[in-house]
Amino acid sequence: MQRSYAIIGTGALGGFYGARLQHAGCELHFLLHCDYEHVRQYGLICESPDGDFTLPKVNAYADVRDMPKCDVVCVCLKTTQNHLLPQLLPPVVKDDGVVLVMQNGLGMEAQAAEVVGAQRVAGGLCFLCSNKVGPGHTRHLGYSLVALGEFATRGISERLRAIADDFRRAKVETELANDLDVARWQKLVWNIPYNGLSVVLDATTSELMTQPHTRQLVEEIMREVVADARACGVAVTGEIVQKMLSNTEKMTPYRTSMKIDYDERRPLEVEAIFGNPLRAIQHAGVASPLLEQLYRQLKFLDARNAMSPR
Amino acid sequence: MQRSYAIIGTGALGGFYGARLQHAGCELHFLLHCDYEHVRQYGLICESPDGDFTLPKVNAYADVRDMPKCDVVCVCLKTTQNHLLPQLLPPVVKDDGVVLVMQNGLGMEAQAAEVVGAQRVAGGLCFLCSNKVGPGHTRHLGYSLVALGEFATRGISERLRAIADDFRRAKVETELANDLDVARWQKLVWNIPYNGLSVVLDATTSELMTQPHTRQLVEEIMREVVADARACGVAVTGEIVQKMLSNTEKMTPYRTSMKIDYDERRPLEVEAIFGNPLRAIQHAGVASPLLEQLYRQLKFLDARNAMSPR
Repeated sequence: MQRSYAIIGTGALGGFYGARLQHAGCELHFLLHCDYEHVRQYGLICESPDGDFTLPKVNAYADVRDMPKCDVVCVCLKTTQNHLLPQLLPPVVKDDGVVLVMQNGLGMEAQAAEVVGAQRVAGGLCFLCSNKVGPGHTRHLGYSLVALGEFATRGISERLRAIADDFRRAKVETELANDLDVARWQKLVWNIPYNGLSVVLDATTSELMTQPHTRQLVEEIMREVVADARACGVAVTGEIVQKMLSNTEKMTPYRTSMKIDYDERRPLEVEAIFGNPLRAIQHAGVASPLLEQLYRQLKFLDARNAMSPR
Repeated sequence: MQRSYAIIGTGALGGFYGARLQHAGCELHFLLHCDYEHVRQYGLICESPDGDFTLPKVNAYADVRDMPKCDVVCVCLKTTQNHLLPQLLPPVVKDDGVVLVMQNGLGMEAQAAEVVGAQRVAGGLCFLCSNKVGPGHTRHLGYSLVALGEFATRGISERLRAIADDFRRAKVETELANDLDVARWQKLVWNIPYNGLSVVLDATTSELMTQPHTRQLVEEIMREVVADARACGVAVTGEIVQKMLSNTEKMTPYRTSMKIDYDERRPLEVEAIFGNPLRAIQHAGVASPLLEQLYRQLKFLDARNAMSPR
């Protein structure tokens, strides 16, 4: 069976994965907002160390009601747009289709499940460096791994194996996660310190790793997030901390996605990456002071950013 | 007996209190660094809502070895200069004199005590809004209270009563603190959240109090500092938190001293206000995560500031 894919939000992430999938022969349907006219006319461009390519003709839509129902609906919006999911998802997902939430943070699969039912939801965690450099034009810098996991059940499903095959044909590395909660929290172990401190301190990952005090603080935040996960009943182990620290030390200086949003004066994904984990931990009756302080600092900066448009 | 005063560091704070004391008839000796030539020639100017005045002739010194030994040696340097105390204090303090430490933070009296002996040390906590607007020229904006307390003993000494009388004659409100540790920690309850967050978030006190998330964070940091004080055996009570919050809400928008230092690219008093309390708490075996995170964030910003001179 040939699966059809909808890309809900054709930006740095959706534009990259969607273009790769179409380039590999899949049927793709792209939802766009500001870039709709341009992409309808000129298609998509993807620059990548793996090879540049253009897709002069793509199925572009400005309204989800014009889209066909698809087998796989990839949610690639910023989480700050997730209040739109009740309007966006129902028209485009088949009855036996799957909504693949490819966003950062925690709790977005539950939001999608409220709209389409838990059985139709899965998570796709993206480890990707990609920027949108123009309408329909992405520049892929490195990494592309997608970790796929079911939302309503543990274990690896046939439908996720099939999706993983499509991604692999599109030269996107994949992993099948046995436990989506573990995968989500493990990603938070990285995202919370680096996204948070990069915005609060106006710093790249390498600046944070070079200065001994922030290097130490990153590690302490990571340890707190691991403890938070465990308090929420999610089996994240502490070894991940040293692994992430040494991996990040080897990375080239990196501006986090939240820092890019901040610099571009876009709304920050504070609730998805910080607020939702914080509320989960508070619900478990545990204090998470480093996370909470970062959350409140970011809420202040996000609110001020919103008051001073570019 | 008429007491002689030395002012070690004639800036916004030392310039203000020293000028007031001399204006009230005390014998004053001022140590200066960059402003020495100017002040020797033109004296001091003090603008204040309490009345402006000039002192065309003052005893100005560029080297402490030229100064007479004094009864009261007021330490008015930034704490980042306290490594100079072993050179600065011995030549200028009488055998039965008192070193009055008028700095922000914790642990500076102990530093002075290592140099001149604990019996000769007292603390003077300054609640002052004053800026240096030119060499020897201070602009007093409001408040001026000095809280005086002995370092080596509890209770109120005769010598501090005498110093308080001099300050009162100089139209400076004073308080006599029975327990210097309590006074120091109470001041930290204010200084830690407002100095720290004002620098990290580039914010005035009123911005911090207006935004609900930072208002909440300020309160949580205050409560942590109160708990820290108590863990260190210092009897600070929790009522101070609500009192300080409502007092600060009534203040006009205020740029903290640390924020002014940061904006002027001067070294921050991170160790005195954050590092020393943190080490005291760690010594007591207690975690203080909000303080520690602020400390490490400020160390990062201070180090970067030092690398990019104005």
